[in-house]
Amino acid sequence: MTSSSRAVLAPLYEQVRNATLALVAPLAPEDCVVQTMPDVSPTKWHLAHTSWFFERFVLESALARSYRPFDSRYEFLFNSYYNAIGPQYPRHQRGHVSRPTLREVVEYRRHVDRSMRQLLEEAPADLVESHAFAIELGLNHEEQHQELILTDIKHVLCTNPLRPAYAATPAVAGTETALEWLPFDGGLIELGKDGAGFSFDNERPRHKVHLENFEIASRLVTAGEYLAFIRDGGYRRPELWLSDGWSACQREQWFAPLYWVSTGDDFTMLTLSGARPLALFEPVCHVSYYEADAFARWAGARLLTEAEWERAAASAPVTGNFVESGFLHPMPSARVAGAAPAAAQLFGDVWEWTASPYLPYPGYQPFDGAFGEYNGKFMCNQLVLRGGSCATPGRHISASYRNFFPPDARWQFSGIRLARSPHRAPGAPA
Amino acid sequence: MTSSSRAVLAPLYEQVRNATLALVAPLAPEDCVVQTMPDVSPTKWHLAHTSWFFERFVLESALARSYRPFDSRYEFLFNSYYNAIGPQYPRHQRGHVSRPTLREVVEYRRHVDRSMRQLLEEAPADLVESHAFAIELGLNHEEQHQELILTDIKHVLCTNPLRPAYAATPAVAGTETALEWLPFDGGLIELGKDGAGFSFDNERPRHKVHLENFEIASRLVTAGEYLAFIRDGGYRRPELWLSDGWSACQREQWFAPLYWVSTGDDFTMLTLSGARPLALFEPVCHVSYYEADAFARWAGARLLTEAEWERAAASAPVTGNFVESGFLHPMPSARVAGAAPAAAQLFGDVWEWTASPYLPYPGYQPFDGAFGEYNGKFMCNQLVLRGGSCATPGRHISASYRNFFPPDARWQFSGIRLARSPHRAPGAPA
Amino acid sequence: MTSSSRAVLAPLYEQVRNATLALVAPLAPEDCVVQTMPDVSPTKWHLAHTSWFFERFVLESALARSYRPFDSRYEFLFNSYYNAIGPQYPRHQRGHVSRPTLREVVEYRRHVDRSMRQLLEEAPADLVESHAFAIELGLNHEEQHQELILTDIKHVLCTNPLRPAYAATPAVAGTETALEWLPFDGGLIELGKDGAGFSFDNERPRHKVHLENFEIASRLVTAGEYLAFIRDGGYRRPELWLSDGWSACQREQWFAPLYWVSTGDDFTMLTLSGARPLALFEPVCHVSYYEADAFARWAGARLLTEAEWERAAASAPVTGNFVESGFLHPMPSARVAGAAPAAAQLFGDVWEWTASPYLPYPGYQPFDGAFGEYNGKFMCNQLVLRGGSCATPGRHISASYRNFFPPDARWQFSGIRLARSPHRAPGAPA
Amino acid sequence: MTSSSRAVLAPLYEQVRNATLALVAPLAPEDCVVQTMPDVSPTKWHLAHTSWFFERFVLESALARSYRPFDSRYEFLFNSYYNAIGPQYPRHQRGHVSRPTLREVVEYRRHVDRSMRQLLEEAPADLVESHAFAIELGLNHEEQHQELILTDIKHVLCTNPLRPAYAATPAVAGTETALEWLPFDGGLIELGKDGAGFSFDNERPRHKVHLENFEIASRLVTAGEYLAFIRDGGYRRPELWLSDGWSACQREQWFAPLYWVSTGDDFTMLTLSGARPLALFEPVCHVSYYEADAFARWAGARLLTEAEWERAAASAPVTGNFVESGFLHPMPSARVAGAAPAAAQLFGDVWEWTASPYLPYPGYQPFDGAFGEYNGKFMCNQLVLRGGSCATPGRHISASYRNFFPPDARWQFSGIRLARSPHRAPGAPA
Repeated sequence: MTSSSRAVLAPLYEQVRNATLALVAPLAPEDCVVQTMPDVSPTKWHLAHTSWFFERFVLESALARSYRPFDSRYEFLFNSYYNAIGPQYPRHQRGHVSRPTLREVVEYRRHVDRSMRQLLEEAPADLVESHAFAIELGLNHEEQHQELILTDIKHVLCTNPLRPAYAATPAVAGTETALEWLPFDGGLIELGKDGAGFSFDNERPRHKVHLENFEIASRLVTAGEYLAFIRDGGYRRPELWLSDGWSACQREQWFAPLYWVSTGDDFTMLTLSGARPLALFEPVCHVSYYEADAFARWAGARLLTEAEWERAAASAPVTGNFVESGFLHPMPSARVAGAAPAAAQLFGDVWEWTASPYLPYPGYQPFDGAFGEYNGKFMCNQLVLRGGSCATPGRHISASYRNFFPPDARWQFSGIRLARSPHRAPGAPA
Repeated sequence: MTSSSRAVLAPLYEQVRNATLALVAPLAPEDCVVQTMPDVSPTKWHLAHTSWFFERFVLESALARSYRPFDSRYEFLFNSYYNAIGPQYPRHQRGHVSRPTLREVVEYRRHVDRSMRQLLEEAPADLVESHAFAIELGLNHEEQHQELILTDIKHVLCTNPLRPAYAATPAVAGTETALEWLPFDGGLIELGKDGAGFSFDNERPRHKVHLENFEIASRLVTAGEYLAFIRDGGYRRPELWLSDGWSACQREQWFAPLYWVSTGDDFTMLTLSGARPLALFEPVCHVSYYEADAFARWAGARLLTEAEWERAAASAPVTGNFVESGFLHPMPSARVAGAAPAAAQLFGDVWEWTASPYLPYPGYQPFDGAFGEYNGKFMCNQLVLRGGSCATPGRHISASYRNFFPPDARWQFSGIRLARSPHRAPGAPA
Repeated sequence: MTSSSRAVLAPLYEQVRNATLALVAPLAPEDCVVQTMPDVSPTKWHLAHTSWFFERFVLESALARSYRPFDSRYEFLFNSYYNAIGPQYPRHQRGHVSRPTLREVVEYRRHVDRSMRQLLEEAPADLVESHAFAIELGLNHEEQHQELILTDIKHVLCTNPLRPAYAATPAVAGTETALEWLPFDGGLIELGKDGAGFSFDNERPRHKVHLENFEIASRLVTAGEYLAFIRDGGYRRPELWLSDGWSACQREQWFAPLYWVSTGDDFTMLTLSGARPLALFEPVCHVSYYEADAFARWAGARLLTEAEWERAAASAPVTGNFVESGFLHPMPSARVAGAAPAAAQLFGDVWEWTASPYLPYPGYQPFDGAFGEYNGKFMCNQLVLRGGSCATPGRHISASYRNFFPPDARWQFSGIRLARSPHRAPGAPA
Repeated sequence: MTSSSRAVLAPLYEQVRNATLALVAPLAPEDCVVQTMPDVSPTKWHLAHTSWFFERFVLESALARSYRPFDSRYEFLFNSYYNAIGPQYPRHQRGHVSRPTLREVVEYRRHVDRSMRQLLEEAPADLVESHAFAIELGLNHEEQHQELILTDIKHVLCTNPLRPAYAATPAVAGTETALEWLPFDGGLIELGKDGAGFSFDNERPRHKVHLENFEIASRLVTAGEYLAFIRDGGYRRPELWLSDGWSACQREQWFAPLYWVSTGDDFTMLTLSGARPLALFEPVCHVSYYEADAFARWAGARLLTEAEWERAAASAPVTGNFVESGFLHPMPSARVAGAAPAAAQLFGDVWEWTASPYLPYPGYQPFDGAFGEYNGKFMCNQLVLRGGSCATPGRHISASYRNFFPPDARWQFSGIRLARSPHRAPGAPA
């Protein structure tokens, strides 16, 4: 980042931090404490953790002893997983912690914001510059937590028998779109973030991968298509499933995507705006990798690899209805504001499970220091998701961004795009 | 209850219901949501459940269709364990429920209170009379939950790394009191609640039990005595423990009573008023039955049976410093107010584990209808505790009241009183 | 025991030890290794443990260094639960231990037997005398394990999908017997083992208990009666169950006694002699305390207390068909031989769950030394069973013998006898 | 396979089946029943399952009704995981099954062998031909289970406190070998089984992969090098571990490879021939992927990808001491005989964890029918191991064979080979 760091970062800091708080506006303090499963973190925890990130990695480093931490005990409570920093409060018990209260956490945010503003506005340029990366990382980090706040509060609200809504939603009229198969040439392509500018360490280095020709679906799998899978016995036919997937399916008694509620012969869908009937033309959402994989097998197709996905995303111009389908997720930046996500959801953009385990790219170098724990240590037992969802801040929608979750995760805004290899024999399925 | 039910119950209703709300005054909404272990219920749940009790067992019965339930979905959420009424939200997930919020629950209470007041003040005498028992049971029930609110919030606050206090506590100056052995004659005695007046079904019928002569300690076991047990290897010597107790001790890694925090060679004690040094002359508190039993064995003594306890409690006049020791827990009625419990605790009154499993008395008849589930179905795998604690509302301190918990429960205000059989050989321990 | 110890013990030793081995005759080595649930111990373990008991508590004490242990590592493997002796191999992993093999364990038994014979026949009288108690305890202990061998191998064989039989069984023709209610007077009775002669420490001291008048059923509850309970929804009606019992019923998905296999509308029963149709007039067996208690509640009756049981067992002469019903279990001594138990079972004698938790009698003194762990430390969370079963060696059938198991145990030969309080109102159930 | 199938398969069948039985010779029946953890199957189960494979997929298909299954109930017991065939006895309870006994299972093998011989020798050529693939798959399958028999019995014997040996072992004199880095050129290479001949479906199709230049270690990581990792705090430094690996390390309390027993400052190693001191120059064995990955990070290197491994394995001639190090595992075929494995182990050949998740190759087609479950459904949550171990039958040592296990598996003969990218800056580690 150049000497204009101050000019760029100061307004961005305000924007991102405000956007986070805006997400909390519709919530009661009680909503912000609850942890409905180990993967979910309380909203309050997200608010505090993202502030701690700036406190610990920027303020304490840049201002040293002249910075007074808000409460020294917060490090134990709000350090997520940085072993290099110190021990952490157990993740699965985050919902046991009533104090600090939401109000106290907001005060904590203000304390950090005041100091950050002071740093960004008044500190010597070289001090700002030397912390520009940490600040930029902190802002990207905060945006990741903005999506998690929405994802987690959806679980909190939707598993409540009273089914409260997060926000009202405008009516949406979906329409059917025919699925087309878009062909892409293979060959030796390049994968990974190129050039300068911020990126996460897991997006680099750019490297060569050999691909065969492939075809991808012009749009995501819809709820209606997924319903056909269910009605064809998809959840009762082990031959469609990976072995671990079938175990998960039986152990967890899956019968439909998360948040689909059986109402006799039909389904109701729980959303951030409450329960509503299935919208058959919307993309199916809240499926695990196991379900995405089983659906693809049922459909006689397969999931994309992340190299295929990135190849397709980087290709221009694109044939067919590719752009219209939202593949590149050209979400309005307004989405980061609090009111929009539930509405955006309705537009049907979801993370796309790929068939690619989350691995380091060849020559991968983790960030330095404690930041090295940001991504690298999670490169096992997870699958890559690409694209971005209706809950993803716009700056995170990019062709090289790599999201990742374990194959049984369903509470994310995750869906399915199909792929296939060309030159199939006539009469082959799909 | 006579025709004066209305006159008695109306003011009592106000008093008890207000006392419950007073307990919540020092708490933040966030405190009232959290469930730190399966045995703990959120404060919010206690407030709602006790209101549901009146709604379901009094208002819906007495007023029938003219009563409008506040929210028909609350029955599923706030029915504790009455299978005769219907299914219940899973107990161990009560901490997952952010809605209704504390404010909404308080509104629910007001809704119920308005209807109850109307019933108590305006309904025909015979209608009040026919529900007098349910109302009186509901008030006793609510007082039991007052103690649970304090017990549970203590767990919520004390397991928080920030160690917030529930209330400030006046300084207390304890003094050492010598232990005396108070002798009681055996013979055929009567046990259980006698005469008219409210009692729980488990206190009746009054029945005969044969006792041998016995002696009881004139005061409770102190923290100082318990510390000696710890320092003598009490938690490392299996020969002192019941087999299941030793398993629990190792599995849970017990090393001291709950809320004692090791500080190197010494201990700090967590209380409703925060952390403070051990007060060696106070009764030890927050021990399980297993620990109480192991301590007694170490001391060459034993715990009382509940028949011995009730025999002693009923005896008058009492020799020695029996009364002063608080055996009958003559707590000021002020204790039911919100501010007092933490202070009262300091006076060292705790429930006393007896050696008696919780069983029906011979000829036991459960309450009628759904109330039959109140006590009877729990008469297995639990031990009786007698006396009452600093958190017990004064009306519940009685010679026949039977409290009960599983032998590994430690989060109750539970302590130890020793007993022994007389005429031991010279030189025998204790 | 008098100076005739040698004369009494030497032949008894041979008889008891041979009886144990006879039980193993029908088994393959593979049968003797398997542990089908944590409560079950492999046959091989029983054979070794009972030998270790004599080695450790008699031979090593009496012969000191002149005794050479068979294998010093066996102490860790075959010490059951004597913490005073040392650490123990984890109980739930006993089925992981293939070595020593069955053959090696039988060699171990012979080694111990040779030394025991030498001691009993050649050692100075006072040395025998001073170990007479340990030897007699060892023999009683071994007889307890004889029953456990049968109980455990029944679980091993019956949970095998091939349903192998332990032994062939003669045909049995049961007949219906009308249930009568036998009245007993209450009053101050004496309970516990009286006079000299061997007893377990838990049978003493004899002490006074006050009883009200009561009535007991002249025979055990039959399979046919239990079937009526099942068909009346017994396993689906929570109001019949203790709370913990209902939890166990749902968690374990109980629908009938253990070893009853649903065959559509009917049941098959798995026995030591293979599968066969229900014999409706036989006593129901393999029910937990929870089921016994639920059945009694359904029948409008209750279980006996152990004081009532012992009062009835000690009473003579007995009215009705009391003796014929086998209440006192006058089993032929031939039952201890290997071939008989499966046949005997068919005669329907089972342990009778009482309503009494397993507690020390007033003034209870555990055996000295490590033997103190034999009974005392288990006096929590268990219920007393009285009488004896078809698998119980005859010497253990006595009016004062106290068996005990946790309330959810079903793999023992445990059944139900009903009791009630007299003077019921006309028309009352049962 | 050509018309000579009969000529090839008949003798091969005898050889492979006999080799399996030879592995069991040193075992007692008791050893063959035990399941010491869910991943381990009893020897008896392996013997029966491999026979069932021929019975079900060859005999019942080829001979139809003229073949009489040995026992129709065996299908439920010995079907491993073929959902297309039917339900399966729960895997984690295989150690609960004492019957059929070892003797009965051997009879079952003979029954199957007789029918297979008859088929191979007497059936029409086209019938043999049409089942040639199933037979060849069955033999390869049986060889896989030969390795598992050794792997599993090692766990059974080594977790027994008596530490019995499977077989005696000749003395071995290891010598230190310097580690060299062998360079390989990258580029577009081909990966996967080529040409005709049997292969598993997961080895195909051959396909192109782009590789950068890389270097691999000329030999496996030794026990001595791994000891240095341990002594440098390898098991206490989270920065060296993947996040899931660190969790496993703490949860399972790992402190060294499986079968290393701490003896104060040093370690003893448990092997198939009993306990012996660490041999510092042997390859380290019985490490999980997590440990292999952590070691590589500690050493400043990384693991190979499977493409790199296969590139190196296919390359000829190889520089350095590559061939001598046994990289291609040119094991004498005598290794499949019972006596050799323990000795061979000592020669230090182990499976090599790669950094590659187990995935379908592009264009992967599972075997037809039920065989489709053989490999494909396990392509998730596992890592590929390459090479083969001292327990691997010689025919399975090939450049394209893909073994796979979850990242926490330690009971396999699994070790570590390091790789690195060339052109490191001077002074870089490793």
